[in-house]
Amino acid sequence: MGEEVGKRRTTVKINGQNYVIAGKADVSHIHEVANFVDQKMKEMRRINPYLDKTQLAVLTAVNISDEFLRLKKQIGQESKKKDGEN
Amino acid sequence: MGEEVGKRRTTVKINGQNYVIAGKADVSHIHEVANFVDQKMKEMRRINPYLDKTQLAVLTAVNISDEFLRLKKQIGQESKKKDGEN
Repeated sequence: MGEEVGKRRTTVKINGQNYVIAGKADVSHIHEVANFVDQKMKEMRRINPYLDKTQLAVLTAVNISDEFLRLKKQIGQESKKKDGEN
Repeated sequence: MGEEVGKRRTTVKINGQNYVIAGKADVSHIHEVANFVDQKMKEMRRINPYLDKTQLAVLTAVNISDEFLRLKKQIGQESKKKDGEN
């Protein structure tokens, strides 16, 4: 995010609103990430239709972080297991 | 999320607002996830103080998803590399 020199600016639509994402990442990666968040927000809205936009976005961030931190823990455990084998 | 039978309900505070998280996960894991999102939102607000609460939460979800999808790709590549070695 931001407007630093050398960064590409890509516009994506998430939950019906446009966001400008600035960064050095591939445009295709940025669209993949935006679509991922948009899908996760749709799923969350389907389960909890009474949430306002902010709650929806925060709880989507919580669900994605849950998956992310579980994956990181799993990698940590596998790496420890490997170290034990060597 | 939700109020299904057999699920624990844990209240967490993210960006100054309380959220009730329902699920079978450990309470300590739920607090870890909530703190992670809260910290990421604080970082995002520091860099982009002009964002409203919804934009802040959506762009935080985008940043976390960026890290998550990069990690998943990296694991996929390492797994392919291993398959090639065997």
